[in-house]
Amino acid sequence: MIKVGIIGATGYTGVELLRLLAPRNDVEVTIVTSRELMGTKVSDRYANLRGHIDLEYSAPDMKVLGKCDVVFYATPHAVAMNTVSELLDAGVRVIDLSADFRIKNIPLWEQWYKTEHVAPGLVADAVYGLPEINREAIKTANLIAVPGCYPTAIQLGFLPLVENNLVQCNRLIADAKSGVSGAGRKAVEDFLLTESTESIKAYGLSGHRHHPEICESLNNFSEDEIKLTFVPHLTPMIRGILATLYAPVKNGVKVDVNELQDLYEKRYADEPFVDVLPQGQFPATRDVKGSNRCEIAVTYSAETDTIIVLSAEDNLVKGASGQAIQNMNIMFGIDELTGLNGISLMP
Amino acid sequence: MIKVGIIGATGYTGVELLRLLAPRNDVEVTIVTSRELMGTKVSDRYANLRGHIDLEYSAPDMKVLGKCDVVFYATPHAVAMNTVSELLDAGVRVIDLSADFRIKNIPLWEQWYKTEHVAPGLVADAVYGLPEINREAIKTANLIAVPGCYPTAIQLGFLPLVENNLVQCNRLIADAKSGVSGAGRKAVEDFLLTESTESIKAYGLSGHRHHPEICESLNNFSEDEIKLTFVPHLTPMIRGILATLYAPVKNGVKVDVNELQDLYEKRYADEPFVDVLPQGQFPATRDVKGSNRCEIAVTYSAETDTIIVLSAEDNLVKGASGQAIQNMNIMFGIDELTGLNGISLMP
Amino acid sequence: MIKVGIIGATGYTGVELLRLLAPRNDVEVTIVTSRELMGTKVSDRYANLRGHIDLEYSAPDMKVLGKCDVVFYATPHAVAMNTVSELLDAGVRVIDLSADFRIKNIPLWEQWYKTEHVAPGLVADAVYGLPEINREAIKTANLIAVPGCYPTAIQLGFLPLVENNLVQCNRLIADAKSGVSGAGRKAVEDFLLTESTESIKAYGLSGHRHHPEICESLNNFSEDEIKLTFVPHLTPMIRGILATLYAPVKNGVKVDVNELQDLYEKRYADEPFVDVLPQGQFPATRDVKGSNRCEIAVTYSAETDTIIVLSAEDNLVKGASGQAIQNMNIMFGIDELTGLNGISLMP
Amino acid sequence: MIKVGIIGATGYTGVELLRLLAPRNDVEVTIVTSRELMGTKVSDRYANLRGHIDLEYSAPDMKVLGKCDVVFYATPHAVAMNTVSELLDAGVRVIDLSADFRIKNIPLWEQWYKTEHVAPGLVADAVYGLPEINREAIKTANLIAVPGCYPTAIQLGFLPLVENNLVQCNRLIADAKSGVSGAGRKAVEDFLLTESTESIKAYGLSGHRHHPEICESLNNFSEDEIKLTFVPHLTPMIRGILATLYAPVKNGVKVDVNELQDLYEKRYADEPFVDVLPQGQFPATRDVKGSNRCEIAVTYSAETDTIIVLSAEDNLVKGASGQAIQNMNIMFGIDELTGLNGISLMP
Repeated sequence: MIKVGIIGATGYTGVELLRLLAPRNDVEVTIVTSRELMGTKVSDRYANLRGHIDLEYSAPDMKVLGKCDVVFYATPHAVAMNTVSELLDAGVRVIDLSADFRIKNIPLWEQWYKTEHVAPGLVADAVYGLPEINREAIKTANLIAVPGCYPTAIQLGFLPLVENNLVQCNRLIADAKSGVSGAGRKAVEDFLLTESTESIKAYGLSGHRHHPEICESLNNFSEDEIKLTFVPHLTPMIRGILATLYAPVKNGVKVDVNELQDLYEKRYADEPFVDVLPQGQFPATRDVKGSNRCEIAVTYSAETDTIIVLSAEDNLVKGASGQAIQNMNIMFGIDELTGLNGISLMP
Repeated sequence: MIKVGIIGATGYTGVELLRLLAPRNDVEVTIVTSRELMGTKVSDRYANLRGHIDLEYSAPDMKVLGKCDVVFYATPHAVAMNTVSELLDAGVRVIDLSADFRIKNIPLWEQWYKTEHVAPGLVADAVYGLPEINREAIKTANLIAVPGCYPTAIQLGFLPLVENNLVQCNRLIADAKSGVSGAGRKAVEDFLLTESTESIKAYGLSGHRHHPEICESLNNFSEDEIKLTFVPHLTPMIRGILATLYAPVKNGVKVDVNELQDLYEKRYADEPFVDVLPQGQFPATRDVKGSNRCEIAVTYSAETDTIIVLSAEDNLVKGASGQAIQNMNIMFGIDELTGLNGISLMP
Repeated sequence: MIKVGIIGATGYTGVELLRLLAPRNDVEVTIVTSRELMGTKVSDRYANLRGHIDLEYSAPDMKVLGKCDVVFYATPHAVAMNTVSELLDAGVRVIDLSADFRIKNIPLWEQWYKTEHVAPGLVADAVYGLPEINREAIKTANLIAVPGCYPTAIQLGFLPLVENNLVQCNRLIADAKSGVSGAGRKAVEDFLLTESTESIKAYGLSGHRHHPEICESLNNFSEDEIKLTFVPHLTPMIRGILATLYAPVKNGVKVDVNELQDLYEKRYADEPFVDVLPQGQFPATRDVKGSNRCEIAVTYSAETDTIIVLSAEDNLVKGASGQAIQNMNIMFGIDELTGLNGISLMP
Repeated sequence: MIKVGIIGATGYTGVELLRLLAPRNDVEVTIVTSRELMGTKVSDRYANLRGHIDLEYSAPDMKVLGKCDVVFYATPHAVAMNTVSELLDAGVRVIDLSADFRIKNIPLWEQWYKTEHVAPGLVADAVYGLPEINREAIKTANLIAVPGCYPTAIQLGFLPLVENNLVQCNRLIADAKSGVSGAGRKAVEDFLLTESTESIKAYGLSGHRHHPEICESLNNFSEDEIKLTFVPHLTPMIRGILATLYAPVKNGVKVDVNELQDLYEKRYADEPFVDVLPQGQFPATRDVKGSNRCEIAVTYSAETDTIIVLSAEDNLVKGASGQAIQNMNIMFGIDELTGLNGISLMP
C-alpha cells in the first residue's frame, strides 16, 4: 500500500489526483492539505468525491507528510521549492505538479517566474517527468517535475520530427487551444462563464511561461536550436488541449506521408498513453476527456512543404494529474496503466 | 464470466453500456449489433472506446445472441418487443433500455407509443427495473424494463412522500431539466449546437411518454391516484437531469423539516446509488455526471405548505445504461456497485 | 436631446444601457461613472463599445450628474438610496436599476437586504417601473424603481390569472431558470465557466430577494394574499430567464383553453413588449436574447387542474436595462419602441 | 426604397440578411423564397423575426424576383449559377452569398465544387465582393460574389503583409477557428450539441474549398505566388471566426513592431468595418458577435522572425450576410454603415 500525501489539493489538479487515486486498492491517500480550507471535508469542496474520499483538509504538517511514501504538490508556482528538501530528507519521494523544478536553467526560470529560486540545488536532480522521454530516469527519481499541460501536448507532437532532424527547428509553430480549466479554480473575471463562453481568443502573446520549458526540453533532442512561435488560445470549454503544430520541412528532406505516419507509429508503439491515429483520422479533445491518453495525428501540406501535427490531451490528466500518477506508477514499479485506464465520457 | 450482447449500440445508451462494461473483468461483451453500421469498428464510431473495445458492429444474429448470458436492447422503442421472446426462449436474460415493457397497461402503452404491442404477454412478466422499489423481483427476473430517464429521477424524488401519504397526490408537479443527450444521437435540427445551446425551453407540453410511466409506477405506492403536471425542459448541456418536484402537503399533515430529512435519509439508507444530501445542500447535475448516483435534497416552503424535492442524475447512467447494469449486477448476484463506482469528472 | 448619466456602469446592466442608448440620435450619454475605473475608457472595459462610445469612466460628480435630464443607477443594492435625493432636488429624473426603491414595505426591504434604508421617505414616491401595470404613473414619475429580472418575467406571466381571480393565489409556483449573467460581472468562483457550464442547479432555496418584490407587487391585483414557492435555477447559458409558472385553478373555476389564450392575448394586446405566443407555440430564451420582448405562452393541465404559464425574457434587457429605457421613453413622452426594437441574433 | 428579394432564406445567412434588413426604412424585402417551406411564415421558422417580418416563404417566382432592385442568393453552392442570368437580364442586381462566382479559374472551381459550372461566362463579370479591395468595382457591379467566411478574415489579416511584400508568401499559415454556425442549419450528426460542444477539433485537412479562393484573391496583390497552409477548426460556440495567421518574414526584411502597427492602421484607416486594435490588445470573437466589424491585431515574434496576425469576425455577418449588405450599400450609393452599425451583445 503506497501512502500518498497531497499538498494544496483545493484546485483542479488536486481534485483530479483524488479522482484518479481514490478508487485504487494499492494506494492510500493519508493527508490532503490546505491552509485555507483546514477542517473542511474534501467532499464538501468537491461534491464528485462524496462517498469516495472521507478526508478533511488539514494543515501541511511535515511530520505526517514525512511518513508518506510519495507526496504530490498541487500548489501554485514557487511554493514547492520551499519545503521539498525537507520531505526528500525524510525519504519521501516528491512529485511536483507546479513549475518549480521544470526548467534546469535557473536564471531563465527566475526571469519567467519573477521570483528567486530558493532550492536551485535540487533542480539538477529533479527529473522532468515526461515518461515518453525520461522513463528510465523516472524509475529511480526522488523528485519529479511534472511537465506543464501545453508542453506535454506540444513536445509529444514535435518529438519524432525533432529527433529525426526532419524540420527547420528555428521556425516551429504551436497554435494551441486550451479549455478554461487551464486557468485553475481562481475567481478571476476573465474566466467567468459570461466572459469566456461563446468566444475564442489568443492570449499570452507577449510570452507564456510554458515557452522556455518546451524549448529547453526539445533542445535535448534537436541538432539545431529550437525556436518556437507559441500562441495559446482560450477555448470555450472546460477541459482539453488541442495543439496544432506546424513545422517547415528541412531543405533537402523529402516527405513521404506513409513514412511519416510510420515514424510516429513506431516512436510511440510502446507508449501506453500516446495514441497515434490512423492516417486520415484526426483528434478531437472530447475523445480524451478524463483520460490519460494523448491522441496524435500527422499530415503534410505539399503546397507549403510543411508538416502538420495535431496533438490532443486532457490538460488536467495527461497534462497534469494523470501524468503525475503515471510517474508515480513508474517510480513504484507498478503497471503504468494502473488507475489510468478510464474511458472518456461520450458524449 | 458473464457473456453480454448489446443490440443496437449505435446511440448514446449503447456506447455508455460499453464504457461501463469494457473495463470489467467479470464481463465479456461478445457481440454488438447494428444493421446500419455492420462491419464498422465500434471504436471508429466512438473514439473514446479506442483501445478498450475491439469489436465490430455485426448483424443481430440470434444464434450468437442466444449464447449470451444477458442481452441489452439499446434500441428505439418498438424494436425489442419483436425479438425478446426468442432470446428468452434461448435462456438469455434480457434487459431492455427502451420503453417496450415499462408500462403494464397495454392500451395505455399503445396510445402513447402509437403502435400495436406485439408481445403483450411478456409485459406482465417483465420487471420494472428500478432497484429502489423492485430489487427482490429483479434478482430472479428474466426480462427487465429499464425505467426512463425522467421517471427514475422523478420517482426517486417523490417516493418517500407518496409512500408515507404526506402529500396531495393529485397535484404533483415535476419541472424537469434535461441535457440534450436525452434526445439521442439523431441528426435532428432542433438539437444542433446552433439551435440548442445558450437557450432553455420547455417541450412536450401536450404530453410526454414518460408521463404515464411515472404515474403507473408511483400509483403502486400511493393511497390516492397519482396526478402529475410534468414539464420537461431542454437545457443547454450534454448530460444530466435535474427534477424540481413540488408536492402540496396533505391537509392535516404538519411538516417538520428535520423529520422530512430523516424520512428521506432512512428511505435510502441502504441504497448504494441514492445519495440524500445533508440539509441545506442541493444537487447540481455536474456532481453526478458520468456517475450512477442520484442526488436528492428535500426542503419545505412553509409559506405555501409545499414540499420541494430536488433530484439529480446523469440521464445516460442512472437514467439509462448505469441503471441497466445495476439491474444486471442484481440479476447475477454480483455486488451492486461493481463497475458503477466511477467518480464524476470535476470540473 | 435627452442628457443621460449612468452611475456605476461597470457591470452588465451598465454596458447594456450603453449598448441600447449609444445608437440613438435623441439621447446623449454625457457621463458614465465608476470610482474604481476612473480614467479608463469605457470601450477598454467593454470592447463591444469600441467605436460607439468615446467616454471615460469618471467619478460620480454630482454637479455634472445634476445637469442630466435623467440618471440611471446601475449600482449594487444600497448605493442609490444615498444620493438619489440630491439628484431629484437638482431636477434630475432618476431610474434606479437596483432594488433600493422596489419594495414599499421598508422593514421587509431592510430584512431582505440586511441594511437600514437611508431614504425611506422616497420609497413611497418611487414608481415601480413595470409599464404593463404602471404606465400612467411612470409618465410623470421622478424616481423609477426598475423591477428585478425574475419579478418581471414572473409577474407578466401570472398577472392575467391573478387579476381575473382564476387561481389559488396561495399556492403559486415559479420555477425559474436564469442564465449566469444574472450574477453580474463579479469574480466569484461559482460563476466561473468551469464551475457553471454543463450543469444546472437550484439555488436560493432558503429565500431569494426577488420573492418579496414579486408578492408585494402581485398583491395589488389579487383578491387573496399571494403566496409563492419560488425556486430559481442557475442555467448554463449567458443570458435569459425562463419562468415556468404553475397555478392551481380556483375551486369552481372551469378552464377553457381558448378562453385562457384569449385572456392573455387581450391583456397584452397593446403592450409592445409582451408577445403572447399562438396556442401550441412555446418560448425559448434564445428567441428574445438581446431583445426587450417577453414571450408568454399559457396552457392547461386538465389532469391536475393546473394552469401552466411559460414566460421568457432576456434578463439584462426586459429584465433590467431595456425595461429601464422603456421607462425613460415613457417618462419623456417618446415612442416606447424607440431604441428597443432590435432583433435577436439567430442563432 | 430598394426592393429586395432573398432566394433560399431558410438557413443562417438568410435569416441574418432579414435580421439586418428588416429594421431599415430604405429597404423593402418583397419576397423570400424557399421551395421546401413554401407557405410557412418566415417568423415561424425564425422566432426572432416575430413582429419584424410578416412574409411567408414563396416559390422562387422569377416574375416577382425580376421586379426587385436587388436579389440575394442565400442558397447552397451550385444553385445561383442556374438562374442568375435571368435576373441580370431583367435588370436586377444580384448578390450571391454562395461560392458560384467567387473563383475566376473555372476548372479550379469545378475541381473543388465537383460540378460543372453552367454559367462560366458570368464569372469574369462577377465582382468579388470584398470592399476592402474592390470598392470601386462594387459600385457599378451587377453581380457580386460575396467572399466566404474564412477568406474574409484571412485576407483582411494577410493583405497589408502581402501588398507590401514583407513575408515569404509561399509559407503562409492560417490556423482558423470557427463556430458551428459555419456548418449551416443542416441536420448533421457532427454538429449536434452533444457532438460538438465541449470539444475542439481540426477538419478539412485534406483540403477546404475556401483554400483556392483565398489564394486566388491574394495572388492579385502578391509579387510571389501565394502558398498557404490552411487548417480550420470546429470550435464549440455558435458564431465567430478567429484566424491566427503566421507569416515568416522575407529574408532581408527587418521588422519594427511600431512600423508594422502603423502599416495596418494606415491600410485600414478609411475602412469602416476593419478595426485595427491598439498594440497589445487582441481580439476575441465575442467582441464582434452580431457586428459587421473585423478586428485585427498584429504582432511579431523576433525569436522565429515570424509575423502573427489575429483576425476576428462574425462568420455570419462580416463573413456572410453583413458583408453582402455592405456590398448592397456600396452598389446603391448608400452610406456604407447603414444598417450595419449594430453593437455586439456583451456578455
